Amino acid sequence: GGVDKEVDFANYFCTYAFLYHQKEMLSDRVRMDAYYNSIMQNKHHFIGKSVLDVGTGSGILAIWSAQAGARKVYAVEATKMSDHARALVKANNLEDVVEVIEGSIEDVTLPEKVDVIISEWMGYFLLRESMFDSVICARDRWLKPTGVMYPSHARMWMAPIVSGLVDQKLDEYEGSMEDWYYFADEMQNDYGVNMNILSDAYSEEQRKYFLQTTLWSNLHPNQVVGTPSIIKEIDCSTATVNEILEVRSNFSTKITEEDARLCALGGWFDVHFRGSDQNPAQQEIELTTAPSVDQGTHWGQQVFLLHPPVNVSEGDELSVSFVMVRSKENHRLMEVDLNCEIKQVSGQPLKPIRKKFFIE
Amino acid sequence: GGVDKEVDFANYFCTYAFLYHQKEMLSDRVRMDAYYNSIMQNKHHFIGKSVLDVGTGSGILAIWSAQAGARKVYAVEATKMSDHARALVKANNLEDVVEVIEGSIEDVTLPEKVDVIISEWMGYFLLRESMFDSVICARDRWLKPTGVMYPSHARMWMAPIVSGLVDQKLDEYEGSMEDWYYFADEMQNDYGVNMNILSDAYSEEQRKYFLQTTLWSNLHPNQVVGTPSIIKEIDCSTATVNEILEVRSNFSTKITEEDARLCALGGWFDVHFRGSDQNPAQQEIELTTAPSVDQGTHWGQQVFLLHPPVNVSEGDELSVSFVMVRSKENHRLMEVDLNCEIKQVSGQPLKPIRKKFFIE
Ligand SMILES: Nc1ncnc2c1ncn2[C@@H]1O[C@H](CSCC[C@H](N)C(=O)O)[C@@H](O)[C@H]1O
Ligand SMILES: Nc1ncnc2c1ncn2[C@@H]1O[C@H](CSCC[C@H](N)C(=O)O)[C@@H](O)[C@H]1O
Repeated sequence: GGVDKEVDFANYFCTYAFLYHQKEMLSDRVRMDAYYNSIMQNKHHFIGKSVLDVGTGSGILAIWSAQAGARKVYAVEATKMSDHARALVKANNLEDVVEVIEGSIEDVTLPEKVDVIISEWMGYFLLRESMFDSVICARDRWLKPTGVMYPSHARMWMAPIVSGLVDQKLDEYEGSMEDWYYFADEMQNDYGVNMNILSDAYSEEQRKYFLQTTLWSNLHPNQVVGTPSIIKEIDCSTATVNEILEVRSNFSTKITEEDARLCALGGWFDVHFRGSDQNPAQQEIELTTAPSVDQGTHWGQQVFLLHPPVNVSEGDELSVSFVMVRSKENHRLMEVDLNCEIKQVSGQPLKPIRKKFFIE
Repeated sequence: GGVDKEVDFANYFCTYAFLYHQKEMLSDRVRMDAYYNSIMQNKHHFIGKSVLDVGTGSGILAIWSAQAGARKVYAVEATKMSDHARALVKANNLEDVVEVIEGSIEDVTLPEKVDVIISEWMGYFLLRESMFDSVICARDRWLKPTGVMYPSHARMWMAPIVSGLVDQKLDEYEGSMEDWYYFADEMQNDYGVNMNILSDAYSEEQRKYFLQTTLWSNLHPNQVVGTPSIIKEIDCSTATVNEILEVRSNFSTKITEEDARLCALGGWFDVHFRGSDQNPAQQEIELTTAPSVDQGTHWGQQVFLLHPPVNVSEGDELSVSFVMVRSKENHRLMEVDLNCEIKQVSGQPLKPIRKKFFIE
């Protein structure tokens, strides 16, 4: 689809131009430790090598790559954050190694192909933001055939969830509709205008807002009430944009709690730093955004509300069909169609659940 | 300046496409009563006449115009809200009078010139959103020489204010800088990167966010501690875009409280429905967004923080130079340069206050 570059800048890149936002990412210890360790425990990938950092932001990954011994690091950043990255590189005495380049990676020309492409491109539920497209573009243009991708692999996960969010959002939706009817009455009585014709459209708008927009949440592991399933695996060295345009998965998951209230499906991702087959990592590092007691990340998990909640029992099986595509209006946002059939151990048939979601 | 239409749609119009947002405006009783009364108490302007509603939104002003007896109403709306407006018109049996047209008023062609242009174009502090440009364009193209503007006049006001917001925002700013220094320490200790070089830039960003961005507030009249001044008057029948591109005002205001803590300047507006000289209103109506105990509006007032606060006394005189221009990046947002000199009754000289603000 044709992407208006100016709109993309206004909607997407603008937030990254704030140090405040970069600091939030730099304050995510799980994220930071994973990238730091992946670099520092695999210096053989960096010593004397050329590196491309796609979307360098504050410059952090480029700086670590240089500190790990890279000969040359190209640090490309689309926003004016590049000025701050350049200042930071200089203040850390790495300006002989790290070259900060302001521009979209799609438009940039490098003087050489590189040994390593490093990037932190992951959005909510992995693919939101569609930034991996840019990494693929960089890889196809600028990575040597022997080169290594950091991270090298990525996976998307889903699992059944219990969460009070479903009650809260149902309440909010219902409260909002009560407001509407009160408002419509007032409009009729005080201003002589009959608003009833818009009630359905208002309800649809509010359902979308409260019930169909996926929610950010930092789930506790005990909110996961069934076996997590992998719904997508990506090999960063070979994946094409075509492979990630649409995510289709049919998976099944078993309830693992004796009695549970199925409120939602939760979605998260992990990425791995394994190097390549010919040039593997010495220490494989994993960065996971799965529900965790004390290893939460700024990505959290995405919650897809299934309302009304359904009572389920240990052994009940959910068969889920999941289809995620990019939204037509904004290729960095996603739309999901979910179909969920529940086979109860008791044999009782349950009405299939069918929902549409927006990852905004 | 060249305006990217797609960006403008993504940034500005998108919010108006939600019924939720239209409902917020329709729930503002002060706003609604003013427009309703201005129409219903001046039916001579509408009976048998042609009307253009610039930015009809839900269609409300077009519907009232028709109910007041208009022969024909052109209701132009840039967003898909036009579909809802059309449905509402039909449900209220006015489809023979009101024609809803989807499009920017700048691009629309009408079959005739009109007797009345009605529009609710006012943004925060009157001019934010720059929508009056579109009303001027409509007037110059489609209003008969004998036509009438609804509203007909507008004014911007400023006054000295006492407000706890200044302490709150100073605290937030300071807390945010403490965070930063803590963060920078951690980055040095745990990840070997010296962030100090970015401290100034971070501080500047946070100052802008907490202290230089004007704040929405519904002020109580007793927070106004000096005489309000008119800083701009607009005659909607004759004003040109050139006249509103920049607002320059040198005004002075006297402190009216015995002892007060000058914390901010507050800005608001009013508009008037007076018809035209040849065709005046039978009942003049005023819509004011001034601080009020129980007549608050969704516009509230804009607060320009003067920090640190200054102790002032009755009779002290503030000489303020105010310059407001449109922001280069987004013509619908504003930037303000304020210069404030305080002449104390006691004769004591005070350091002039000089601040830059962003109305975002
Ligand atoms: N196509 C593209 N070209 C250049 N930079 C891009 C890009 N797409 C996204 N970016 C930038 O990539 C960054 C992603 S956030 C990660 C920042 C940094 N690497 C860190 O790990 O902390 C943002 O700063 C964004 O502006
Ligand atoms: N240039 C333009 N052409 C057409 N519509 C415009 C416009 N600029 C702004 N608008 C529309 O004007 C409306 C302003 S809000 C006012 C809505 C309605 N008249 C009411 O009083 O309730 C928005 O719906 C916005 O989309």
